[in-house]
Amino acid sequence: MSKFPNNIFGIVQDDLAAVEKELYSIIQSPVDLVNDISVHLVQAGGKRLRPALYLLCARGATPNQSELLPLAVAIELIHMATLVHDDVIDNAATRRGSPTANARWGNHSSVLTGDYLFAKAFSAVTAGADNHMLRILTDVICTMCEGEIIQLKESFNPEQDEADYRLRVAQKTAEFIAASCELGALSGRMEHSEVVQLREYGYSIGMAFQITDDILDITASAEQIGKPVGNDLRQGIVTLPVIYALKNSPDHAELRQIVVNQVMSDEDVKRGLEIVHGTDAIEYSYAQVHKYLQHARNSLPVTLNSPVRQSLLAVADFVGLRKY
Amino acid sequence: MSKFPNNIFGIVQDDLAAVEKELYSIIQSPVDLVNDISVHLVQAGGKRLRPALYLLCARGATPNQSELLPLAVAIELIHMATLVHDDVIDNAATRRGSPTANARWGNHSSVLTGDYLFAKAFSAVTAGADNHMLRILTDVICTMCEGEIIQLKESFNPEQDEADYRLRVAQKTAEFIAASCELGALSGRMEHSEVVQLREYGYSIGMAFQITDDILDITASAEQIGKPVGNDLRQGIVTLPVIYALKNSPDHAELRQIVVNQVMSDEDVKRGLEIVHGTDAIEYSYAQVHKYLQHARNSLPVTLNSPVRQSLLAVADFVGLRKY
Repeated sequence: MSKFPNNIFGIVQDDLAAVEKELYSIIQSPVDLVNDISVHLVQAGGKRLRPALYLLCARGATPNQSELLPLAVAIELIHMATLVHDDVIDNAATRRGSPTANARWGNHSSVLTGDYLFAKAFSAVTAGADNHMLRILTDVICTMCEGEIIQLKESFNPEQDEADYRLRVAQKTAEFIAASCELGALSGRMEHSEVVQLREYGYSIGMAFQITDDILDITASAEQIGKPVGNDLRQGIVTLPVIYALKNSPDHAELRQIVVNQVMSDEDVKRGLEIVHGTDAIEYSYAQVHKYLQHARNSLPVTLNSPVRQSLLAVADFVGLRKY
Repeated sequence: MSKFPNNIFGIVQDDLAAVEKELYSIIQSPVDLVNDISVHLVQAGGKRLRPALYLLCARGATPNQSELLPLAVAIELIHMATLVHDDVIDNAATRRGSPTANARWGNHSSVLTGDYLFAKAFSAVTAGADNHMLRILTDVICTMCEGEIIQLKESFNPEQDEADYRLRVAQKTAEFIAASCELGALSGRMEHSEVVQLREYGYSIGMAFQITDDILDITASAEQIGKPVGNDLRQGIVTLPVIYALKNSPDHAELRQIVVNQVMSDEDVKRGLEIVHGTDAIEYSYAQVHKYLQHARNSLPVTLNSPVRQSLLAVADFVGLRKY
């Protein structure tokens, strides 16, 4: 997936560089294998969207960097821990075009390294969060686990409607991005109403972000997204475009047969995607993305200082534009 | 495995009942499947050794129960989370005679439920621990993960000596029991020297406990320990009796061939155990257990109040006596 253009996060660029440095420092282990896997995960990179949003929201009130680093680092470590466990669960071979930890070191070491990163995250957080903030963070991990378990339970089930999908996306993705923004606003000691608005902004960005991911799984090339096209369909994850096509395609019965098939051939996946493309599922899904982004923009507190506001608006624009 | 006789934990019996109640309350999830798995894990029970030791050490200075509950609950939740992930890693079918969560609900849901329990543990802990205590807890989780990863890496490797084994047992088991006692002493606001001594007590109990487990895997019947005999050998986990026999048996070359075999037949396992039994590996291993227990007894601070001291001595006696 494409990285965010540097200038979007310009005003927290130095903070993000410090987060990067701290990530390498905190994961150091006397056990070589733990080091190797953790460094691989940090190097695999990613957008650092969550700590960036945390920092942007906190910088509204410009507290000093050292106060913000622990939570920014903890947020990214939790994200990394959930990714490495998700890859185990999805049997994913690649992420962002690189081999996953589970493909390279096996599922078992990956489960343990995920646990290690969770513990490191909570170790980091002791320095930078009060009880209320720690509670937000632990609650959102529980929510993500619940979302992933629901996704597992509902895999290959064509009887899911859009409301089920939205709830799942909220639990899996949007709630954590919402919490990142909320925690940033709390670290920035903002007013309660501003905290609530920035949380709402993060939630809507998260929804838009995940729906876009789900669209790209169907429309982008394998080279662009760094994993096989139609991966979700093959894994039984029923996403918005598929739900739309199951309801609106003349070939809905055939698509349903494909969705319930737990051992799909490449041909099945290809035909499934064809049926989705035969409807206006993609247009419909993008329209939902744009609704969430508009809501995100409208949620920004009017009291935000201008550079922070501009950056948060630019994040919304970028989520709407990315094509891979 | 046998439960500890009730009277051992008599002076914290009420506290343990409150822990049990709180465990059920904290794991409640709006997602049925998460509830089902978590309740199964709480019901599967176990000895509650770690929270019991935490409470006993804290009760030396009798602070009130409500102050101690959060950390006692967090300690048991962390233990449960590591067990459910260990069972995934070991592909275990049964634990304490009941089907494991992974056998019943699959590896994927089990990984996620483990994460859920970790998060719930940290959520609980916010109410009852200062930064120093939280740090002890997160560090020990990292240590356990490192120990498990080393165990994975060294599985089916006959070139391990006793020092490797002791380090691994310390990381996997003893450090967490040490931390439970240390945290108890800290909650009980004891003197620094007492905290150090109770930590040492816990460490030695932990070493004795794990070595006993490793002996019982070889000597007890499947009915007694609730999992197949020789399970460690089959999984490639090289324990103290095997290390001893690899060094001292006339059939050491044959045993070595069995240990490196990654797909052992029942016959291989049986023959491996026979070779171990042909030496005084079990006697030697029990002698190590008793050395650790004696060290545990000697580590108890002289300043401890008498009922607490008696209970901690009784725990040491019981660890030395249990036969399954």
